[in-house]
Amino acid sequence: MTRTGEFERISRIFAPLSADFPGAFALTDDAAVFAPRAGCELVVTTDTMVAGVHFIGDEPPSAIAAKLLRVNLSDLASMGAAPLAYTLNIALPREIDDEWLEDFASGLAADQATYGIALAGGDSTGTPGPVTLTVTAFGEVEKGRALRRAGARPGDGIYVSGTIGDGALGLLTLRGLLPGLTEAERRALVDRYRFPRPRLELGRRLVGLAHSAIDVSDGLAADLGHILETSRVGAEIESRLVPVSAAAGHALRDDPGLVAMVLGGGDDYELLFSAPAEIEEKVLALATAEVPVTRIGKIDTGSGLRILGEGGAPVHLAKSGWEHR
Amino acid sequence: MTRTGEFERISRIFAPLSADFPGAFALTDDAAVFAPRAGCELVVTTDTMVAGVHFIGDEPPSAIAAKLLRVNLSDLASMGAAPLAYTLNIALPREIDDEWLEDFASGLAADQATYGIALAGGDSTGTPGPVTLTVTAFGEVEKGRALRRAGARPGDGIYVSGTIGDGALGLLTLRGLLPGLTEAERRALVDRYRFPRPRLELGRRLVGLAHSAIDVSDGLAADLGHILETSRVGAEIESRLVPVSAAAGHALRDDPGLVAMVLGGGDDYELLFSAPAEIEEKVLALATAEVPVTRIGKIDTGSGLRILGEGGAPVHLAKSGWEHR
Repeated sequence: MTRTGEFERISRIFAPLSADFPGAFALTDDAAVFAPRAGCELVVTTDTMVAGVHFIGDEPPSAIAAKLLRVNLSDLASMGAAPLAYTLNIALPREIDDEWLEDFASGLAADQATYGIALAGGDSTGTPGPVTLTVTAFGEVEKGRALRRAGARPGDGIYVSGTIGDGALGLLTLRGLLPGLTEAERRALVDRYRFPRPRLELGRRLVGLAHSAIDVSDGLAADLGHILETSRVGAEIESRLVPVSAAAGHALRDDPGLVAMVLGGGDDYELLFSAPAEIEEKVLALATAEVPVTRIGKIDTGSGLRILGEGGAPVHLAKSGWEHR
Repeated sequence: MTRTGEFERISRIFAPLSADFPGAFALTDDAAVFAPRAGCELVVTTDTMVAGVHFIGDEPPSAIAAKLLRVNLSDLASMGAAPLAYTLNIALPREIDDEWLEDFASGLAADQATYGIALAGGDSTGTPGPVTLTVTAFGEVEKGRALRRAGARPGDGIYVSGTIGDGALGLLTLRGLLPGLTEAERRALVDRYRFPRPRLELGRRLVGLAHSAIDVSDGLAADLGHILETSRVGAEIESRLVPVSAAAGHALRDDPGLVAMVLGGGDDYELLFSAPAEIEEKVLALATAEVPVTRIGKIDTGSGLRILGEGGAPVHLAKSGWEHR
């Protein structure tokens, strides 16, 4: 990686992002070298984003950078890992100029400072196709203690951080589909869609407490489904318990049918996890003013997910999950 | 990563590639978890390949898979690292069918067995553009002992493994530009272009011996330039000492001007390294029947690279290096 010609044009722009990470060798070697702290393991996750598929393309490049880094950080959070470093692969069409790259790098720099992660290496190339971006993020977690999807047990309480549905409603807002909202509400939802908040601190504090965890990217119902499937258990949640923002609450009052988008829409990047009933108080005490933690249901011995709506009637989602294809 | 919809269609095809790697969790979790052995550090490298830019597109998918994995393995070799695992990101246009993916996966499977590496995770997505592939490879090396570009010292001998120029001449062959060669010679060169041989065992054995190392991907002259620049030294090599294959030798006899392609062409994926003069014998003894090791020149106190041609006249390359953009 970091080849002449492939990376040279942009090394001036990206090398400063590796300045605080000695193992990056200032992006001048064939590879990066680093290790998790003694007693820790490495957690590795990777996501690719394609212009026109995962982002609209007219966002500020710094916003695209933030989303790219944060969806990966959210995966680290869901494993209980602390961020360490990341590599970046960019395939760029000819029309991408230095101004675009500089704004993109400024978005990375801001989030590096916020989340304590550094650029370790990467590769860049031209493409006749759309901007295609890959981040591979590295975190560390105490050996054998990474949070997993598998591990939920009957009797566990099911919890989510933050509020659910804002990401999906933010995308609807961008498409002009929620005209009844106030300007401030629309801005709040779009901001949630564009700028996921990886729940890294909560993830770290769940190590040793949670039986299972995942981040909500496909949608609450689909991601809880992943936990149930890998843990071989069932669950029941109540839709009225699912925490929503003021803006999402307004949208739901205007159109109760939007509950399907809230529960199934995805792009929330909140943590969804289960923990033993006995430690409910301890789990709820992890909530902060900025990151609430809410109990939404219970793991049981059944199979599959049952969602109870208002009055206890079952809710059926037409499609559980959100597919980027 | 490994999301519903993004990875599900193909998880049937790719999950078996992670079967021998427990930390991949059979591609069913948010991230992979692993650690280098005690006393070792992690070496991380990443490369992206785009159809129409890095490969022609009509190769068998298994050959594309082999090149993608091997260019990354070659970077691990150049750092003296032993392969551990890799992640794979694939962005696929609609016309890519399961048959393509299965052949691609079979190429990965074959090389996993050959080189002792396993799939740890990944991401897949659709794209309106060309097939875009990223591998991020992880290796391990004894703490503080990774081979580096920086480290060459005046007096060091300069060595290369294998033969130089076959990759670049292989590409010329594919373009129909070397009609004077025999069919067997053409096949041999194309094979060298398509199937790099990462020199992993030699790289491991150079740990503690070599002062500097790099793999030849941009071209012998350009990559030696990288060593000189990061090591702040100069060098002199003799073109007659640069080892070439029988096929490349034939091409050079037909057209001595091809020496520029041999020294500057790239895509060799041989190791280029320097080591103290005192251990020349020890270094040359690392050669095997399959992987020769040849001394081609010497590091000096100057700056930049001087290439001496036949009769001692300096060789000037129009362009030192090979750019994929």
